Amino acid sequence: MDYLNLRRQTLARNLKNDDGMDALLVTNPVNVTYLTGFTGDGSYLVASDKKYILVTDARFEQQVKEECEGIDVHVRPHSKTIAEAAGEVLTKAGTKSVGLEADHATLGATDALQQAAPKVTFAAAKTRVESQRVIKDPSEIEQIRAAVRAAERAFSMFKATIREQDTEKDLVNAMEGYIRRSGARGAAFPPIVAVGERGALPHAPPTDRALGEGSKLLVDWGADMLYKSDITRTFKSPFGTAPTRRNKHERVGFDFDKVYDVVAAAHDAAVAAVRDGAAAKDVDAAARKVIAAAKFGDYFTHGLGHGIGLEIHEAPRIRSNSTDVLESGMVITIEPAIYIPDWGGIRIEDDYLVTKDGATRLTTLPRDPGAIG
Amino acid sequence: MDYLNLRRQTLARNLKNDDGMDALLVTNPVNVTYLTGFTGDGSYLVASDKKYILVTDARFEQQVKEECEGIDVHVRPHSKTIAEAAGEVLTKAGTKSVGLEADHATLGATDALQQAAPKVTFAAAKTRVESQRVIKDPSEIEQIRAAVRAAERAFSMFKATIREQDTEKDLVNAMEGYIRRSGARGAAFPPIVAVGERGALPHAPPTDRALGEGSKLLVDWGADMLYKSDITRTFKSPFGTAPTRRNKHERVGFDFDKVYDVVAAAHDAAVAAVRDGAAAKDVDAAARKVIAAAKFGDYFTHGLGHGIGLEIHEAPRIRSNSTDVLESGMVITIEPAIYIPDWGGIRIEDDYLVTKDGATRLTTLPRDPGAIG
Repeated sequence: MDYLNLRRQTLARNLKNDDGMDALLVTNPVNVTYLTGFTGDGSYLVASDKKYILVTDARFEQQVKEECEGIDVHVRPHSKTIAEAAGEVLTKAGTKSVGLEADHATLGATDALQQAAPKVTFAAAKTRVESQRVIKDPSEIEQIRAAVRAAERAFSMFKATIREQDTEKDLVNAMEGYIRRSGARGAAFPPIVAVGERGALPHAPPTDRALGEGSKLLVDWGADMLYKSDITRTFKSPFGTAPTRRNKHERVGFDFDKVYDVVAAAHDAAVAAVRDGAAAKDVDAAARKVIAAAKFGDYFTHGLGHGIGLEIHEAPRIRSNSTDVLESGMVITIEPAIYIPDWGGIRIEDDYLVTKDGATRLTTLPRDPGAIG
Repeated sequence: MDYLNLRRQTLARNLKNDDGMDALLVTNPVNVTYLTGFTGDGSYLVASDKKYILVTDARFEQQVKEECEGIDVHVRPHSKTIAEAAGEVLTKAGTKSVGLEADHATLGATDALQQAAPKVTFAAAKTRVESQRVIKDPSEIEQIRAAVRAAERAFSMFKATIREQDTEKDLVNAMEGYIRRSGARGAAFPPIVAVGERGALPHAPPTDRALGEGSKLLVDWGADMLYKSDITRTFKSPFGTAPTRRNKHERVGFDFDKVYDVVAAAHDAAVAAVRDGAAAKDVDAAARKVIAAAKFGDYFTHGLGHGIGLEIHEAPRIRSNSTDVLESGMVITIEPAIYIPDWGGIRIEDDYLVTKDGATRLTTLPRDPGAIG
């Protein structure tokens, strides 16, 4: 099945039904990749119900030949900007009104295009390609599964090799290496390794804190196989009992196991609420209710999850103010958490495929992956 | 010296002189970092001649405290979007007209801000922060030097460890590890390791081609220490003589040493043309003239160089259609190249500080770094 071609056909059909727009100018490189398979950047795709033209430059000429089929290619000379080249292509094609990607085209790029093609009318268009991307086709689901497998394989290496004296920075770097060794292009995002109370920072940047200097360990990582995966696990210190390992910054007063069980229950409640047709905010609420009932409501300070695919964060958004509705074929993260300042954070994150009746877990790593270190 | 504060004072002074704009909304995370030191993302900075307010969310609350001094912070609840929160801050501050960053604000973001702050007039503003960033202050030059040092140290490891059977993918992954081991956050961009004729692709993605299967090796890498470095070296195969190592894809007819000497001479001609006040396009022309005189004019298919700093590609642009003028304090790459399809490519890239009378080379790695492998 030529899924790339199917995607272009679907977009072309949607564009045809959109009165008054002769073409869509796809400027977001992720959307260009989705529609053509081209993995470089700095290239625009002119999309219409009749034709697709990729406007690129000589740096990528060979790569386009290797990666793309069935696409016309316009190679701009290095003396012309991408806006000038795209403007020429649009003018030559006789397009009168062109949609721009509202979530990617900047005010400056819009202005440059307008100057390059004064006869064309440009206007912000609906996020058509993003709307298509939100439902994954079978080839995409397989690629996300591959990214999950690579992340899980990397975790096995991580688990087998970590040492008490390794710092957060050491471990982030090591994880990046394991993810690549597992066949990925790299980490899907800078891995998070947070020791002790540093887990209370949802996006903790790595420090020189050693693994042995803390009673908890939070690891958030994913693989980039073009498609992305995203997993989080939280542990008690693998080195000795938790109280022994507590560092001077970690405050007491909360029991790891009890907080962990609340997050796990919130995770399960959210998964149970997932199905085709469920409002994303209701899934968020299902988790939030469990955490609030345990009196930790103020400590779950971000949304419950997000779509994953070519981007690590994409639609749908699963949070209290989301208007998104879940549909079969969406792939999402579920990642409830409790962050207690100066104590630490517990987050449990897995990847799920939304189905007609529920959710299929794509992560295969056990929630408690056993002894670590 | 508090350079962050100095940068904010300079911007405030420029804003005050800009009639009719009450504030600039800095949405580009790189510009937010430049002005505040905050290294997270998803945060906007409201800048006026009176005050700076960072609009962020709870994920970054602790990090902002650690990284920023002298900035007011507005933490949005997770039920509000960044546009809603920024709109509120701007409305509450009584701003009437707000500049948006033309090269970052999208049509969609502009629309969301307008809806969130209906009384405020938003308009594309000059690229003020980018214009400031183009001239590096002493702390920035030191940080770029540190990024050069890390890249060079990584290259020593690379050079010491490469093996005949390593593939381009292996070597890209290894280089990423060495760059991190050298103290960087990671590679400044995905390293390029191109064997044999693959060097003819300026942005060659890594394949399973082994180092031993080719008569040439091109390596393009840099370190991300928040500030970036960018270096390229090209070699004859380290394993045996070049003809012995030629693979079946590599066509003959060009002498490596002769092509190399043309690129080296073009590099030196460009460096000799660099000085405060030189037109960037004249520096590009100085290199291009040498390459054209050797009849390789059609094979130098990209611009000569670019600024580096917080971003790997930033102003000035050094190419034939550039209108930029070099000034003391700019930091640039010089990277002439010759790409011969099915034969290979030779590129020599170093980083330079523009001075009153010329250029100071920041790279310390010799052009010919000696035996490799």
